[in-house]
Amino acid sequence: MQKYSGLNYTMLCDFYELTMANGYFNAGMKDTVTYFDLFYRTVPDEGGFAIAAGLEQAVDYIKNLHFSGEDIDYLRSRGIFGEDFLEYLKDFRFTGDVWAVPEGTPVFPREPIITVRANAIEAQLMETFLLLTINHQSLIATKANRVVRAADGRTVLEFGSRRAQGADAAVLGARAAFIGGCKGTACVLTDQIYGVNAAGTMAHAWVQMFPTQYEAFKAYCETYPNNAVLLVDTYDTLRSGVPDAIRAFNEVLKPRGISKCGIRLDSGDLAYLTRQARKMLDEAGWTECTITCSNSLDEYLIRELLRQGACIDSFGVGERLITSRTSPVFDGVYKLVAVEEGGEIVPRIKISENVGKITNPHYKRLYRFYGRESGMAEADYIALYDETVDDTKDLVIRDPDATWKQKTMHNFVARELQVPVFKGGELVYKLPSLPEIQAYCQKEVATLWPEVQRFDYPHNYYVDLSDKLLAIKQAMLAAGGKNGRG
Amino acid sequence: MQKYSGLNYTMLCDFYELTMANGYFNAGMKDTVTYFDLFYRTVPDEGGFAIAAGLEQAVDYIKNLHFSGEDIDYLRSRGIFGEDFLEYLKDFRFTGDVWAVPEGTPVFPREPIITVRANAIEAQLMETFLLLTINHQSLIATKANRVVRAADGRTVLEFGSRRAQGADAAVLGARAAFIGGCKGTACVLTDQIYGVNAAGTMAHAWVQMFPTQYEAFKAYCETYPNNAVLLVDTYDTLRSGVPDAIRAFNEVLKPRGISKCGIRLDSGDLAYLTRQARKMLDEAGWTECTITCSNSLDEYLIRELLRQGACIDSFGVGERLITSRTSPVFDGVYKLVAVEEGGEIVPRIKISENVGKITNPHYKRLYRFYGRESGMAEADYIALYDETVDDTKDLVIRDPDATWKQKTMHNFVARELQVPVFKGGELVYKLPSLPEIQAYCQKEVATLWPEVQRFDYPHNYYVDLSDKLLAIKQAMLAAGGKNGRG
Repeated sequence: MQKYSGLNYTMLCDFYELTMANGYFNAGMKDTVTYFDLFYRTVPDEGGFAIAAGLEQAVDYIKNLHFSGEDIDYLRSRGIFGEDFLEYLKDFRFTGDVWAVPEGTPVFPREPIITVRANAIEAQLMETFLLLTINHQSLIATKANRVVRAADGRTVLEFGSRRAQGADAAVLGARAAFIGGCKGTACVLTDQIYGVNAAGTMAHAWVQMFPTQYEAFKAYCETYPNNAVLLVDTYDTLRSGVPDAIRAFNEVLKPRGISKCGIRLDSGDLAYLTRQARKMLDEAGWTECTITCSNSLDEYLIRELLRQGACIDSFGVGERLITSRTSPVFDGVYKLVAVEEGGEIVPRIKISENVGKITNPHYKRLYRFYGRESGMAEADYIALYDETVDDTKDLVIRDPDATWKQKTMHNFVARELQVPVFKGGELVYKLPSLPEIQAYCQKEVATLWPEVQRFDYPHNYYVDLSDKLLAIKQAMLAAGGKNGRG
Repeated sequence: MQKYSGLNYTMLCDFYELTMANGYFNAGMKDTVTYFDLFYRTVPDEGGFAIAAGLEQAVDYIKNLHFSGEDIDYLRSRGIFGEDFLEYLKDFRFTGDVWAVPEGTPVFPREPIITVRANAIEAQLMETFLLLTINHQSLIATKANRVVRAADGRTVLEFGSRRAQGADAAVLGARAAFIGGCKGTACVLTDQIYGVNAAGTMAHAWVQMFPTQYEAFKAYCETYPNNAVLLVDTYDTLRSGVPDAIRAFNEVLKPRGISKCGIRLDSGDLAYLTRQARKMLDEAGWTECTITCSNSLDEYLIRELLRQGACIDSFGVGERLITSRTSPVFDGVYKLVAVEEGGEIVPRIKISENVGKITNPHYKRLYRFYGRESGMAEADYIALYDETVDDTKDLVIRDPDATWKQKTMHNFVARELQVPVFKGGELVYKLPSLPEIQAYCQKEVATLWPEVQRFDYPHNYYVDLSDKLLAIKQAMLAAGGKNGRG
């Protein structure tokens, strides 16, 4: 199945990237070296952090960047692109550098998740697809991580394909959900491509197909004695569903010495029904029978169900995870931050009537500072590209907006978060496996204090700028509203 | 570009569809003929109706249904499927019948958008993908139609690729947005594949790349004199953006006798800024210069901006359209409604603790009644498959939940909404072109009374059941909670 790698998504761009590219070409700027940062502005669901994801698809996209003859014919048909530009596109491929924060890393607003250094045309053309993949998968990984934390150690399965916003949203959404901590998915294709374990047993239709519910359950247990999870809410959960399930377990599983089985509920008051069902199962001796619940769950409902003493071993989370329903947009942007002029890297800024849309200029480095003893993440720090952090000495960091707020870091370890991904157009990064990414994500989330992790009014984690970077930004703002140059 | 047709998405199913399929095979039910309805339960955004979309992709999916050798190897590796079942899958293809409501049709809750008649295995396997495509595209077409109605005749362009939930969400979302009434998209690939006109001119980066904003504008006008739409908010909209644009128009366009041009704003108070910008442009003689706005718009913001006298000719609508942000889930379901037993069609029902999850049983026909003189849609009517409506006579229809509420239809035209799509596995439906679908959608929405179209507390359009169907449903509910059979 090649669908999810080796694809040419070059034409999945915004039209303005092509008009600008042709314009740069005409203006003699095709070889101008530019720096772009991809970052986001607000954490979904008013949470304390997001989980970066989608880099693997960005890498695949970059590797396959090229225009086919058909693509160039289409562009010619639009009647506004020069022939010399179209000729140039024939041999177009990515020749620049890319740095990125690895998938699974907790990230905070305004941090460069990806930095691209490339000529203006290459860098500009990548805008849409890089944003699309990082925005989508970071959104779902972040939501999944919230759901998994709410489930407090219980299993969370991704069940949302049917309500996903398209096939990619189903498959790559399930991939991102795994990064965030889900144990498996209902989506078979995701298992086939990415090895995320696909699980599932029966829909209501199975029960309706047989003359009686009991016969449906019995037939299922006979075919799958080692994986008998029965859906008990087709007609009446407590009056017929659970009793019929117990009868089928007794008649088919017990004689075979099987004690592992399960029921699933997909409707009704899950707190009440699962407590009652648990009691009925235990009284019948099926103490190892697990209870799985689905039905429009999310992190808030799961937290509330557990608070009410619901007896649930495993959650199937569908539409509200796969669309991040309460917060379905990840607002990543891709902004020009510097241009090389005569060998010098000159910063660029975007000023805006909306203060939140003002960018951090220049080619930068992103650090995370961990307490040397606690191992906990204490602050992130954005420095200029030519600055290095010496974590053997104390360091004063300050809030970029409220500069009187400062903090002295001591006894800390500085870790650079971005890794080189492409150098001169060549892939130099070994993509980790999905289980590695999931484990890394879990480990890194554990370095965040509970105050940063909580859902309601989380602590605002420090992301500070170096004094040198801050001075440049302030000078550019003071020069003000004219040309975005220092 | 073959990406969006001819793909084999057979494995994009939920795992339980395969466990059930293997189970039906084992239980000797592989040839049992079943009827499934695909319908939705709630209108997004508490609106009065939804727009059906996504059928073209469903057709493509069904045409290409088959298991590759690789697929079968994967299934074998799971260790729970019988060899005879895997053998059966080798020659698997769709052999049944499908009826569907054409794309672009306004549809109401509980109406069968798609009905499948096929053997249990075929019908069951299609569940996930049919839901996925109809749920996704109906969601976006519905949202787009709301945005377009709010824009009240002004142009709406789809600008959301970068925030879409994956590549399909970008491309097929733009397709669905066109069905709902958008005039174009920013997404180049959608234009290349579907002929939805792609538009766009420059990002902030273009402005930042040049020594001054004026030089950036001038260079753009020189390259694209006939399509000079300048982004004026990079530094300061009114103090430098609009003045620099006017200067560039005066110096480059005026000497060439060009009066058509445009500006775009992507931040700030759009009501105030566009009124001021309009005044400045008009005073400078650029009365034909259009004003395009973007920046997290949706139907509510557009309505409010127009109420405040904003001077906007064209809206670029991004993340809030392409994710249907205020309501990002379309809750379509796919339910077994009948089974053939000894040549007879026997209805099935799903009962539920949640009353809203109870299904309408049986193989059915869906009618829309239009006033013979007004041409307006007055009610929809769901009848049994063997009933026909004679619209030359009066007909009493009644609310399926509140059966004392009845209405006599007279002087009406009955139109059957579903059309045959597959017969015996063969495609018998000529797919309309996208512009045809868009025009049909516009025409059909115009048959809905303003009370059904309004955003706030719309009138609840009548969707009634025939007396015969209602009697069967009530008898099944009365037989109650046992086996879902009449």
